[in-house]
Formats: sequence, structure tokens, C-alpha cells
Amino acid sequence: MSELKNDLLLRALRKEAVERPPVWMMRQAGRYLPDYLKLKAKYDFFTRVQTPELATEITLQPIDQVGVDAAIIFSDILVIPQAMGLEVLMEEGKGPSLPKVITNAADIKALNTADAAAHLKYVLDALSLTKRELNGRVPLIGFAGAPWTILCYMVEGKGSKTWDKAKQFAYTQPELAHALLQKITTITIDYLKAQVQAGADTVQVFDSWAGSLSPADFKTFAQPYLLQISDAVSPYAPVILFPKGTWHALGDLSKSSASGIGIDWTITPQMARELTNNSITLQGNFDPAKLLAPIPQIKTWVKEMIDGFGTQNYIANLGHGITPNVPVDHAKAFVEAVKEYKTN
Amino acid sequence: MSELKNDLLLRALRKEAVERPPVWMMRQAGRYLPDYLKLKAKYDFFTRVQTPELATEITLQPIDQVGVDAAIIFSDILVIPQAMGLEVLMEEGKGPSLPKVITNAADIKALNTADAAAHLKYVLDALSLTKRELNGRVPLIGFAGAPWTILCYMVEGKGSKTWDKAKQFAYTQPELAHALLQKITTITIDYLKAQVQAGADTVQVFDSWAGSLSPADFKTFAQPYLLQISDAVSPYAPVILFPKGTWHALGDLSKSSASGIGIDWTITPQMARELTNNSITLQGNFDPAKLLAPIPQIKTWVKEMIDGFGTQNYIANLGHGITPNVPVDHAKAFVEAVKEYKTN
Repeated sequence: MSELKNDLLLRALRKEAVERPPVWMMRQAGRYLPDYLKLKAKYDFFTRVQTPELATEITLQPIDQVGVDAAIIFSDILVIPQAMGLEVLMEEGKGPSLPKVITNAADIKALNTADAAAHLKYVLDALSLTKRELNGRVPLIGFAGAPWTILCYMVEGKGSKTWDKAKQFAYTQPELAHALLQKITTITIDYLKAQVQAGADTVQVFDSWAGSLSPADFKTFAQPYLLQISDAVSPYAPVILFPKGTWHALGDLSKSSASGIGIDWTITPQMARELTNNSITLQGNFDPAKLLAPIPQIKTWVKEMIDGFGTQNYIANLGHGITPNVPVDHAKAFVEAVKEYKTN
Repeated sequence: MSELKNDLLLRALRKEAVERPPVWMMRQAGRYLPDYLKLKAKYDFFTRVQTPELATEITLQPIDQVGVDAAIIFSDILVIPQAMGLEVLMEEGKGPSLPKVITNAADIKALNTADAAAHLKYVLDALSLTKRELNGRVPLIGFAGAPWTILCYMVEGKGSKTWDKAKQFAYTQPELAHALLQKITTITIDYLKAQVQAGADTVQVFDSWAGSLSPADFKTFAQPYLLQISDAVSPYAPVILFPKGTWHALGDLSKSSASGIGIDWTITPQMARELTNNSITLQGNFDPAKLLAPIPQIKTWVKEMIDGFGTQNYIANLGHGITPNVPVDHAKAFVEAVKEYKTN
């Protein structure tokens, strides 16, 4: 394994001193890059995800073309429901759907939790190949969906604004919900450990729908599983937790085994530092819609963001995935602004 | 005008002592009530909204059938874009859409801000008729959308998860955004004053998409217009502001001319009291998805919620509109639980 030439991300996660904050962007692989769109026109979504050569090519594109300080493997959080035995469809422009949803104990009993590495070998192969191709240029990030977010899709069968069915399931059948969350947690831990073994330098857990829960329900249905994953995986690689929209949990999570917490733009950097007692590396929190503004304006906003977080124990990122309509120049300007950052 | 027999809501808004908290539910008129669904099968959406007899009948249904302590007029926030000259379509099951969206200065210049009362006479007639029919049983609530939320629809043309187009408009053309927000504010103030004159005892301003903005952007594009409305209307009737998802603004808003602030379930009652320095009446914040749980469980949760807020300076409500799939018995149980509330 070649030594990392740029280990800013890992140093920031270990709370070591850095010359400047590392920068990457959620969803940086795919969506807005012209070279990605060419591959998208030729191969359907799961072909792109399940063919290691394609996944690697897509993962590397933003390293070469946008200059980010980390690669995140091109994949999807719904590979876990697939590995557990559920069919997942991805219709272009419509978002994911699961024809068979989880409704009862028998459905949960039937779910597989074994052999994550065998079922998801294509992700591990893509990680190994990407690691080789990166040749130490930047660290490689693996990832998985958080148990609450995966439950949301398994119970609803598709995206939702309110996640009513998932919540009804959790609120009316909490024992079943916990059984399902535990099964997802178990296979996710194995999957993330296998990702580290295959070459991931760090892993991020995306709890995209954590913000749909009240603080008490987050503590019941989301937080324990995030912590279980963090506790199990952090001995092998630093873990970044991203429970979107849960400012109320920042205090608790800052005391966890995780090395980083992702936050979105609905909290100021200053408030996030205060709620985490300045004790953990924070990642975020640029509003992706701001990447649609003129470049000089983007650069001013990035500077303000870093002024707010400070340069240490900080990973510059968006507060959510980059949207397909962002011009590549604007994504580059975001990255450059972090690299050019000077304190006043 | 007959004296109010039940003025719990108004006393709570004036921070006067109450025997128990008043209770009502956002979207209580419509959606889940069988008698509403019968009218819905016969008349399209805008016929129901624009026919005072129908709007009144729908407004009164939950008073008689669910026992809430206030009536809120059956209407829609998008009557303001209509009054300003834009076409609004409402397709069943698809949500609202505006065929012509706002993109430039000429579009904004063409918007009407005059004669709110004339353009929206049907709402005022519905309020007067409802006030008469209520005969003092409970107070009557009028409402409007907040300028930021109305801008979202005017610029996007339909609902959105991220409101990217609306934000891009605001971030790249802030002068135009402010011009549009001011026009919406101007007509909304006239509209709400006319609602009070027609019989509304209090008015609520719904900023449903305020939570899509960062704290700084909320302060720029949402808060000033909410405050302008509150300052202009509060001399005539108490104003309730409901900027959903903006826990970060609670401190500022608690010092405003508003009498109440609505909050959603992503903040604990205790934290909301702390952030508002216990200085303003709070309204909320039951997760509507919890109305799908068994009735005894609903009652336990309602008790916990009131324990958290306290019985004074508090209006029991949901944290967002009731969903169509809630059984009427469960909505009734929510209301009964508030009425039965006893401190330990």
C-alpha cells in the first residue's frame, strides 16, 4: 500500500494540525460531471454501481477534475437492502423503489444478515481497484446508510416527504422496528469493516432522514444504532456520522466513538461548535443551492464558513449532496476557495 | 357579535391564566374527516375554497366532530399568488402548480398588490359566515402563507424537496427576491387585516419552507417579512408565526410583536422554552405521524408533551398538518387528552 501524499482528511479526523482544512463534496462522484453523464447514458444505475471498473472510473473523476482532497466510492445506500434479500429498482428521474416492503415479523425474519462481503463483493472490488488507481493521491471514503434511513426505505418502499409509514411502523410496532434496525445494524457493521479491509481509509454513515424524528424518537430509533456502528467500526478506521437535521443530537454524538460529525446548513458553524463543546471534528455545511450563485459570491461564502468553523478539526463540505444542475466551474470554485483560505 | 363562550386560545395568546391549554390541529378542516371527503367528491378544490357556504361548512366540521377549541378557516396559502395575478392549478393527488413562474423584474412588476379584500372577497365572506355560524362557540383563526414560502411556489411553480430554484433566485438576484418578498408582504398585510375585520379573532402566518434556509438566509429572506407582517397586523389581532424548522430563530422571534410561535416536533418543549426564554406563547408540537399509533399511546404522549410545555402560555397542536390517513377517533383522542390533562 503506497503512503498517502495528501492525508489532510485523516489528520483532520484524528484532530491533528493541518495547514488548511481538507475539502470534499457529498455526491461529488456523479450527477453534475459531464464525463459521468456520458457513462450514465451508456450504462444503467446498477450496472454503474456493480461494475468495479465503472464505479472506480466515476469515483476518480472528481479527484482529477475538481481537485477534492478525498475520494468517496461511487455506490448507493440501498445496496444493503439488496444484500438483505430485497429487490431495489432505480428508475431514472423517479428515485429508488422497493416492490416488496417490510410490514411484519415474518418479513424481518426472512432478511439476510450474513456474508455482507460476499453479497457486496462488487463494492469491495471497486474499493480495492480505486485504492490502487488512486495510488496514494488522496484518502478513500467508504460509506453506508444508517439503520433508521434504511428502515425508512424498507418500510415505505420509496422516497417520502414525511416518512409517515416508516414512523407509523416504528411508533406502533417498536419491537419489530428494533428487530429490523438491529438486523440492518449487524450487516452494516460487517459491510463497513469489509470496506475498510478492502481499502477505505474512513467510512461515513448517512442518516439522511434522521431529521424526520423528534429528539426523543431519534434517541430511540436512530442514535443507538449509529453508536453501535461507530463503536464497532472505529477501532478499524475513523467513522463520520451524518444524521442530517439533528442539531439536537450534536452534544451526545460529540461524546461518541465517532471521529467526525456531518452537519447541514440549518445550523451556524458557531452554534455547532458550541453544541459539540468544540470536542469533535465537524464536516459541512455549505448549502448546495449556493453553488448556483456566481463564483466570486461562492468564494466569499466559503471564506465565511471557514471563518465560522476555524481551520482545525474541520472538513469543508456541503451540507447535503451536490445537485445535478451545478456547473463544474462552480464546484471547482468551492474547492479552490477552501484551498486558498487565509485568515484575516 | 356574540361574546365568546370558549376563549381559551385568545387568553393563551395574551398570556392570561387558563384552566387548561387550548387545543386545535393544523389542517383540522378537511383531509381526514369523512364528511369533508363527501364534499371533496362533489366539488373541486377551488370550488370548495371559493364558495363561502362550503368553506364554512368544512371549517365547522372539526368543531362539531372533534371538539377543538378553535376554528381555522378552510382556505389555501396560494390564494395570494392568485390575487396577485398568477394562475394556480390544484390537481388531486399532485399538489399545487403555477404554470407561469416568476423569473425576472418584469414578472414582479406585473404582480398586483392592490385590493386584496376585493380579490379575496370569498375568503372574507367565508370568515363572516363562519363567525356567524360559530355563534361564539370558539375563536376563529384566519391565515396566510409567509412571504418566503409564497416566493418558493411562485419561483418553483410547484412543490420541491430542496427549493433549489427558489434559493438560486434569492442567492443570485437578491434585489429581485426582496422586491418580490416586499410585494407579497404588502398584499398579505392588507389581506390579514381584512380577515380580522371580517371576523378572524387571530391570524397565523405559515412559513412552511423556512426550514430550507440557513440561519443567516432566514434572517435575510424570511424573518424581516414575518416581522413586518406581525408588526402591522398585531395591533388588530394576535399574530401566530409558524416558521417550520427554524429552532435557530426562536430567540429573535420571541422578542417580536407576535403573540405566539408555532414549532414542530424536531425540538423538545423544554428546549423551545429555553430558547424563547419562556417569554412567548408556544404552539405545537405533536408529530402528526404519532396520531397513527393506538389511542392509549397517543394519550400518554400528549400528557408528556404538556408536561414539557406546561399548561400556561401554551397552545396544544400538531407540529405540522394532520395527514389524510388519521382515523377520526385518533384525532378526537388527541383533543380529549389535552382536555383531560391533569398535572401529577
